[in-house]
Amino acid sequence: VQVRIATWQEAAHAIATMQVRGAPLIGAVAAYGVALAATADPADAAIQSATQHLCATRPTAVNLQWAVARVLAVIQPLSSEQRAAAAWSEARRIVAEDVAATRAIGEHGLATLRADRGPQAPLRILTHCNAGRLATCGVGTALAPVYAAQRAGQPVHVWVSETRPRNQGLLTCWELADAGVDHTLIADNAPGLLLMRHRVDAVIVGADRIAANGDTANKIGTYLKALAARAHGVPFFVAAPLSTIDFNCPAGAQIPIEERERSEFGATTDFVESVANPAFDVTPAHLITGIISERGVLAPTQIEAWRS
Amino acid sequence: VQVRIATWQEAAHAIATMQVRGAPLIGAVAAYGVALAATADPADAAIQSATQHLCATRPTAVNLQWAVARVLAVIQPLSSEQRAAAAWSEARRIVAEDVAATRAIGEHGLATLRADRGPQAPLRILTHCNAGRLATCGVGTALAPVYAAQRAGQPVHVWVSETRPRNQGLLTCWELADAGVDHTLIADNAPGLLLMRHRVDAVIVGADRIAANGDTANKIGTYLKALAARAHGVPFFVAAPLSTIDFNCPAGAQIPIEERERSEFGATTDFVESVANPAFDVTPAHLITGIISERGVLAPTQIEAWRS
Repeated sequence: VQVRIATWQEAAHAIATMQVRGAPLIGAVAAYGVALAATADPADAAIQSATQHLCATRPTAVNLQWAVARVLAVIQPLSSEQRAAAAWSEARRIVAEDVAATRAIGEHGLATLRADRGPQAPLRILTHCNAGRLATCGVGTALAPVYAAQRAGQPVHVWVSETRPRNQGLLTCWELADAGVDHTLIADNAPGLLLMRHRVDAVIVGADRIAANGDTANKIGTYLKALAARAHGVPFFVAAPLSTIDFNCPAGAQIPIEERERSEFGATTDFVESVANPAFDVTPAHLITGIISERGVLAPTQIEAWRS
Repeated sequence: VQVRIATWQEAAHAIATMQVRGAPLIGAVAAYGVALAATADPADAAIQSATQHLCATRPTAVNLQWAVARVLAVIQPLSSEQRAAAAWSEARRIVAEDVAATRAIGEHGLATLRADRGPQAPLRILTHCNAGRLATCGVGTALAPVYAAQRAGQPVHVWVSETRPRNQGLLTCWELADAGVDHTLIADNAPGLLLMRHRVDAVIVGADRIAANGDTANKIGTYLKALAARAHGVPFFVAAPLSTIDFNCPAGAQIPIEERERSEFGATTDFVESVANPAFDVTPAHLITGIISERGVLAPTQIEAWRS
């Protein structure tokens, strides 16, 4: 479905209700939200109100605050007349940079997978949630190396976990089918068996926030896959642009975890007395083989090198 | 829904289509299926055909073959006229034994939990799938210690994982609500976070087949919970009657894993090109703190002691 967003309130609504999701795409929509706000009313008070509202839509993905802060930093020194144009320009720059970053993540990720497996070997990738074209402005984060493999003519197959309760795995199936990439949908319960049976060469997921120590918040269920990958000696990669790294957050325990509504489980659970619906979990750095960014691939303990 | 089963074919249909499920209950229904077959036609050929059909309905739960073999062993030496009555009698005995076994599992399980936590401490149990009253002839396997705690006045709360793709977690919510036991539904993705946040005191699951070395096949997703429990030092128990132990199966790798239909994922996934739907996984013995049977609680490597 295509939705036209014409006000900052609509941008906030799109983020809060997950009309858009995926950390990089949330950031881009929030940046455009600030531009829409600056167009509607460039006064300091109006912009402050809009940006506070935008930043409060979802707590976990740091790209949201990052993008809003970046546009704000550009426009705050300017006069009212100059702000709207500058905000649009900065939002477009954020989008262009994300497009380039996702492409670079694809190339770095593919190079790393090939270093392990060679340029001809079929790659059997397990992913979680959707970290592809529908989650970024470009070719995705976790799926970028998959698309890079496809472009390079390397056989690739993707195990797609359903990602309850919101079923974002269906988005991944949809976009992989659209791109002609071989894939199989599985229940979120299945990765342990697949890894035990040696049917996965690498796990690649996106991220909503990476702490300075490499601990990574991503869609709930990511941590279970990291544990299973480690148990079977399969590499586990996090793919994300630098905008997802929160160097101000020392460790995963400090990342706020969003609790979402029980209605996401669907009407068939309405008779259930109590539901808990945390949207993210934290994978400790020691379970992460490497973090793939537009700058390359580093062990999670070494990402400090990307701070500057 | 209550379904009346009046022929062995209807018993086989009920098992194959999961009108009944849960290893002990499958065994009981299969035993009654043999009794229905012996009533319809007590000739060797007819009984052989019926039992082969019954045993082929589902491959993983060993209670099915166990119950059929047990009734067969009773009736095969008998004359045609004696077979039906003897089969009904043996099927009823299997049910009565299962009722007693589940009650004993509850007492042994509660004693073990109390040894860790004391008789007053609130127990926060994580379970998977449904291994309660709707899965056995009695009070359940994994849920039996929960009901025992409730009877003993010990505060108990159950985290119930949804158990995709068939959502048997909803059966667990239904029966816990019916019994007045406090519980919360979660996505199958959530246990890692809950364990990391110290919100689970013990994991208890049922079993479909326990190999002689203690490796345990249970509903797909069980293995991920065992890995997460181990990562956080939380005990992981398998609760099952002796009829679930397959001493002829040396290790988990020899347990057949049923692959079920993609339609279990629901119509919203009809556009997806390929679906894999393994119904069970295998939890290695080294991740299992103890196996709770009607005979007591043993480390998985010691269950040989229960062979006689």
